[in-house]
Amino acid sequence: MHEFELIKKYFSKLSHKSKSSLNLNDDVFFDKKNKIVVSVDTYIEGKHFINFKYPDLVIKKIIRSSISDLICKGVKPKYYFLSGSGNHKTFTKNNLSKVSKSLKEEQKKYNIILGGGDTVYSKNLSFTITTIGFAKKIVYRNKSKIHDDIYVTGNLGDSFLGLLVLKNKIKINKKLSDYFINHYYKPEIKYSLIDDLNKFATSSIDLSDGLISDLDKLTNNQKNSYQLFFNKIPVSNNLKSIINLKNLLKKNLISNGDDYQILFTVNNKHRNFIKKISSFKKLKITRIGKILDSKHKSSIIDRNGHQIKINNKGYFHTFA
Amino acid sequence: MHEFELIKKYFSKLSHKSKSSLNLNDDVFFDKKNKIVVSVDTYIEGKHFINFKYPDLVIKKIIRSSISDLICKGVKPKYYFLSGSGNHKTFTKNNLSKVSKSLKEEQKKYNIILGGGDTVYSKNLSFTITTIGFAKKIVYRNKSKIHDDIYVTGNLGDSFLGLLVLKNKIKINKKLSDYFINHYYKPEIKYSLIDDLNKFATSSIDLSDGLISDLDKLTNNQKNSYQLFFNKIPVSNNLKSIINLKNLLKKNLISNGDDYQILFTVNNKHRNFIKKISSFKKLKITRIGKILDSKHKSSIIDRNGHQIKINNKGYFHTFA
Repeated sequence: MHEFELIKKYFSKLSHKSKSSLNLNDDVFFDKKNKIVVSVDTYIEGKHFINFKYPDLVIKKIIRSSISDLICKGVKPKYYFLSGSGNHKTFTKNNLSKVSKSLKEEQKKYNIILGGGDTVYSKNLSFTITTIGFAKKIVYRNKSKIHDDIYVTGNLGDSFLGLLVLKNKIKINKKLSDYFINHYYKPEIKYSLIDDLNKFATSSIDLSDGLISDLDKLTNNQKNSYQLFFNKIPVSNNLKSIINLKNLLKKNLISNGDDYQILFTVNNKHRNFIKKISSFKKLKITRIGKILDSKHKSSIIDRNGHQIKINNKGYFHTFA
Repeated sequence: MHEFELIKKYFSKLSHKSKSSLNLNDDVFFDKKNKIVVSVDTYIEGKHFINFKYPDLVIKKIIRSSISDLICKGVKPKYYFLSGSGNHKTFTKNNLSKVSKSLKEEQKKYNIILGGGDTVYSKNLSFTITTIGFAKKIVYRNKSKIHDDIYVTGNLGDSFLGLLVLKNKIKINKKLSDYFINHYYKPEIKYSLIDDLNKFATSSIDLSDGLISDLDKLTNNQKNSYQLFFNKIPVSNNLKSIINLKNLLKKNLISNGDDYQILFTVNNKHRNFIKKISSFKKLKITRIGKILDSKHKSSIIDRNGHQIKINNKGYFHTFA
């Protein structure tokens, strides 16, 4: 069962009085009156990160994954709270020093501060991160309009390739290995896009579970449909070369999650403006589809207009 | 190593820029500018609660333990975020229904709303609860003044007795068993004292780790000392009868944690006022000691002025 299904089924009625929580149907909680935005995520060893061999990298991955929830909504994260459960083997002095150093670097990079937390001893290793920001408004899900363009930042699939390398499912040279592993552990969060999202995006989500899965979530309460242009879905030159070298299929590599790119919709009259933002901020932003009315069925099409089926519909994390 | 030592040693410098976090030296985070108060706590099966045989009771215990952090600081909790890690045996439909029903009851009792959270699958069962409230000011630790009175709400030790019964370490009749188990799972949080604490208390803490341990924490950055009147430390008639019946020592039963009573200090000129609040609000509030200057050594004295040593200095939870 997916995490969101569990929450929806048993807990959504517990927040019905509070419009702020968006009936638990968003990645963040927003209290408009108090201008506060909150996100809570739990990360389990073996599921959300492979192991604790590189504590410094694991902590970067989960911090970025957490603040990504706010950033994709056009909100600057301000405080984070870290609760760690581990044992004497995982919470060694050496590991804790590395974690602390990593946190310091992330704090500087993303202008965030540790507000507090908890550390408890447990056989299994896990972290829960609460992120808090302040904002007068946020970009919601389910607010895209018919004829909106669909955009995505950066490249997709690099993180998944990194995971395959880490799990020894694919063997490539060290330079490429390092590139992909780097993208797995240190996704580049698009902090500089925050204000633009708040100005132009009609809806947004970060790609944590996978392109198709997250696109479905972005529009899950709407009667609209979407059309994705498969050949436009952006992949890095490194991924292209692996696809050729190993005879892989692009469609199996671009919807597996952990990308932490931002997927968002914008009224198509702003198309030139988005191009300018992309060039001015030196941020890769690719138009990959459009929102259609409910008479159409959601589809992914190739350059000849033929439908393509993508099987990997997200939420696998390290279970791949 | 105690949880607070871990946090202090490795993570306190990560919050040094933020006065709000009180250098992680308090149970809550307070951002005065944004008027927000936050607390994060993690609860592990076998450590913070015995098992998940009674999901409805476990969830009440951990919700109350979490909101207690804010309430003891004079802050009304408003939102809570629940992150649960469990497996198919613990997160059954039946258990989730019970959890949901329990949460609904707690929401009504304490006027709180579920803001969001996360549910992930994990071999081990644990919960992390983030509680958020809004306040212009809070009662801090380490602000007691010389000659302040030390007060505690309710009775101490009932919860510990409940734990001993649950762990089959003591055998008593069903009526008394039920009484103590009830106090273990459902501590009565002193919600109605919130405004008074904010008006009168110079410092405060909730008794989660144990009277002596928490009193030490309450004053840990101060040069003052304390004197506790052992015979004044309040215990229930039921606990008194068990002490007599089983030939137990009061001093072994009143500082073992999980009481969730509020320990606070007040200028002694308000002594009559505290009496009136106690009687008006029908809340047991007992004066159990006083703050002295640093020339004295902190002590616990019996009615003859002789020192008493209390060994159980907190943070044992279900490890007892």
